[in-house]
Amino acid sequence: MKTPTPKNYQVPGFKAAGIACGLKKNGAKDLALILSTTPAVAAGVFTKNRVQAASVTLSRRTVKKAGPIRAIVINSGNANACIGKQGMTDCKTLIDRLARELMISKEEILIASTGVIGVPLPPNKLTDGVPELVEKCSAKGMNDAAEAIMTTDLTRKTAVARFSIGKNKIVIGGIAKGSGMIHPNMATMLAFVQTNARIDPSTLQQALKEANEASFNSITVDGDMSTNDTFIVMANGQAGNKPIKPGSKEYAQFTAALTEVSKNLAFQIVKDGEGATKFVTVRVSGAKTKNHAKKVAESVATSSLVKTAIFGEDPNWGRIICAIGYAGVPIHPDRIVIRLNGATLYENDNPTRHASMDSLRRKMQKPTILIAIDLKNGNETAEVYTCDFSYDYVKINAEYTT
Amino acid sequence: MKTPTPKNYQVPGFKAAGIACGLKKNGAKDLALILSTTPAVAAGVFTKNRVQAASVTLSRRTVKKAGPIRAIVINSGNANACIGKQGMTDCKTLIDRLARELMISKEEILIASTGVIGVPLPPNKLTDGVPELVEKCSAKGMNDAAEAIMTTDLTRKTAVARFSIGKNKIVIGGIAKGSGMIHPNMATMLAFVQTNARIDPSTLQQALKEANEASFNSITVDGDMSTNDTFIVMANGQAGNKPIKPGSKEYAQFTAALTEVSKNLAFQIVKDGEGATKFVTVRVSGAKTKNHAKKVAESVATSSLVKTAIFGEDPNWGRIICAIGYAGVPIHPDRIVIRLNGATLYENDNPTRHASMDSLRRKMQKPTILIAIDLKNGNETAEVYTCDFSYDYVKINAEYTT
Repeated sequence: MKTPTPKNYQVPGFKAAGIACGLKKNGAKDLALILSTTPAVAAGVFTKNRVQAASVTLSRRTVKKAGPIRAIVINSGNANACIGKQGMTDCKTLIDRLARELMISKEEILIASTGVIGVPLPPNKLTDGVPELVEKCSAKGMNDAAEAIMTTDLTRKTAVARFSIGKNKIVIGGIAKGSGMIHPNMATMLAFVQTNARIDPSTLQQALKEANEASFNSITVDGDMSTNDTFIVMANGQAGNKPIKPGSKEYAQFTAALTEVSKNLAFQIVKDGEGATKFVTVRVSGAKTKNHAKKVAESVATSSLVKTAIFGEDPNWGRIICAIGYAGVPIHPDRIVIRLNGATLYENDNPTRHASMDSLRRKMQKPTILIAIDLKNGNETAEVYTCDFSYDYVKINAEYTT
Repeated sequence: MKTPTPKNYQVPGFKAAGIACGLKKNGAKDLALILSTTPAVAAGVFTKNRVQAASVTLSRRTVKKAGPIRAIVINSGNANACIGKQGMTDCKTLIDRLARELMISKEEILIASTGVIGVPLPPNKLTDGVPELVEKCSAKGMNDAAEAIMTTDLTRKTAVARFSIGKNKIVIGGIAKGSGMIHPNMATMLAFVQTNARIDPSTLQQALKEANEASFNSITVDGDMSTNDTFIVMANGQAGNKPIKPGSKEYAQFTAALTEVSKNLAFQIVKDGEGATKFVTVRVSGAKTKNHAKKVAESVATSSLVKTAIFGEDPNWGRIICAIGYAGVPIHPDRIVIRLNGATLYENDNPTRHASMDSLRRKMQKPTILIAIDLKNGNETAEVYTCDFSYDYVKINAEYTT
C-alpha cells in the first residue's frame, strides 16, 4: 500500500552511507555502512531458522562478546547463505577490508546480508566498493543506507524518536528492510537502530528484546521465516547521560522510545508487504495467558483465507472464528466476540444481524482494518499486525528469480 | 488443474442419491444420501478445530456408540456451523424426517454439512427435499451424491478398489469433496467410503486411522483447517467374508485397499485445490523420527513462497531449504540433499551447478512436481502432498461471499 516516504534522520555521533557496488543487476544501491564515530555497545536478535547465513553466525558471535562496536556493513542483492564455507570466507574478507579502510579492529564490525540464497558473492565487488563506501559516509547518509538495504521493498524505511534524560537529549533512529518472508521470530527483515544513549550491553539487550517482542516479533506477511533476519541496536553514549539501569524510570523511557521506533519500522514493513493493499491489526483480549492471546492472534493473522477475504473486502467472520478454532488454544466458542472496525460480527454463539451489509462492506473498504477478538476467558491481550493477501503477492513471488 | 472425471461405482448393498433442495442459489445439487440396505458398522475421524459444526458433534457421538448405521445425509451450501443452538436443532429435525421416511431409527443416521459458516439453514428446505432424496436413492446414485457434496470443487470425486478374501469379492468405494481450507488434520473436506466387507467397528476405526494418516492427513492446500471435516467409512458385511481381524493378512489387504481409495480421493482434492496448476509431492527421507520427517515435509508444503515459486516454474531451492530450516526440527544443513523431479539442486552445503538453467526450468514445467529432501540424519520418511499457489487461489477466495 502507498505510504509517505519517511524522512532522513541523524543520531549524534553516527554516520552512514549507501552505494551501488554492483550486486544488484539494475545498478541500484546495494552496500550500506553505519558507523559510530566513537566505540559503541551493541545488542541484537537473529533468525531462529536452523539454516542461517554466514553473516548471521558471525554477527551473533560478535554481539555475544559484548566488546566495543564501531560499524555495521550490510549488503543487499545476495543473502550469502547456503553456499558452504565460502560464505564465511567472504564475510571475513569484507570485514578485513573495511577494518583496514576505517583503521579499526575487525572485532568492532558487524555484518548483515539480504537477497537471493545460494549464490556465491561475486569476488571483489564488495571489497572494491569499500573505499567509496567509507568516503561517502556522513551524518546525512541514513537515507542512502536505508535505500541500500532494500530488496523487494517499494520504499525505504526510517524512523526516529527523541526524549530527554535530565538535560541530556536522547535520539533513537533506525532503518529497516523487509516486505516478504515476514513472520514472527522476525523472518526476512533487517533493522538497524542507533542511539546516543549511554547504556551497558546487557541492559541494551534486555530493552531490545522487549521492543522486538512488541514489534518485529508481532508482524507476519506470509508465514515464512528467513535465513538472514537481524535486528541490531548500537548505543554510543555520546548523550552523556548517567548510564541507564534496568528497572529505572530512564529504562522505561528508553524502552518505550526504542519500542516506538521498532514498531514504526515494523508497521512500515507490513504496509510494504508484498502486494499489500491493507494494514491489519489483530487484537486478542480476554485470553487466559499472554501466550494464548498471541497464538490466537497469529493464527488469524496468518490465515490465507482471512487475508484473501480482507483483500476482497468481505467481512468474513466465519474464516476468523475458524482460525481461532485451530490456534491450538482452549477456547469457549460460545463466549467469543468478534468486531471488525468497530462493528460486532459475532457474539452469543451467533453472527450479529446487521441492518445493512453495505455499511459493513464500507468499513472493509478502509485501508486500515482492526479485527478485535474477545475470548472472554481471562485478562491477557496481544496484538499481531499483518497485511492482506492479493494477486500481487503471487505475482511478485512467482516472478522473483532464483 | 484439469483432471479426468472419475467414473461412477457401485458397492454391493449400498444406494445413493443427490438432489437440489434449494440451498445453493444456482440450483445445483446440494443434498446427498448414502444408504446401506442392511445395517452397517461405521468408523470416522472428524475435525480437530475447536469450533465445530453441529453435524460434526452429532456424528462423532453417534459413531462412538458403535451401533448399527444405515445412512449418511450430507448437505452442501451451508456448513450449519457457528449459529448457536439452532445448528443442533436443525440437524435433529433433518434426521427425524429422514428416519421417518426410511423407516429406520434416528440413531442409525449420520450427518455432515459443508458450505458457508454462520448462516442458519433455511427452514424446511432440507426436510422438504427428503421424499425426493429417498425416492431417487439407487445403486447407481454415487455420482449424484458426489456432485451434491461439492462446494468450490470443480469436479466430483470418486474412487474404488477391489480385492478378494478367499471367494469373497470385496469392494471399497468412496466419494469426497474439498478444494480449499485443506490442511493436515483434514481441513475442509468430506469423504464417505462404503465397503461390503465384514469387519467390526473397532477394527474398522483402526484401519480408517491408518488410511487417513497416509491420505487426508498428508495433504495441504492453504493451511486452513475447517469446522466441518469428516471422514466416515461404512461397512455392511454383505460380502460374507470371515470378519477381518487386526494383525491378519486380510486386515493388511483391507487397509491397503482403503488407503488406496483414500489417497486417490485425497489426490483429487489437491489437484482440485483452489487455483492449482500443479500437483506437488514433498518427500522427506533420512529423518531421525517419523514425526520429524512429516514436520519438515509439512513446512515445505505449506510455504507460500515455495508454492508461488512452483506456480512460477522457478527451481527456487533457497525457499525450500529455508522452510526446512524453520520446521522446528533438528537438522544438519550441510548434509541436506534437495532434488526436484530428479535433478539435484542442493548438496554438500552448496547449490549444484547445472550445465543449463533451461533444462531445470523444463523440469518445472511438468504438471507433477516431486521435491525430494534427504536430511541424512536417520531412516524415517514421510510424504506430504500439495498444489501450487496461483493468482486464481486469491481470486477464488477474495470473491467467495460470506
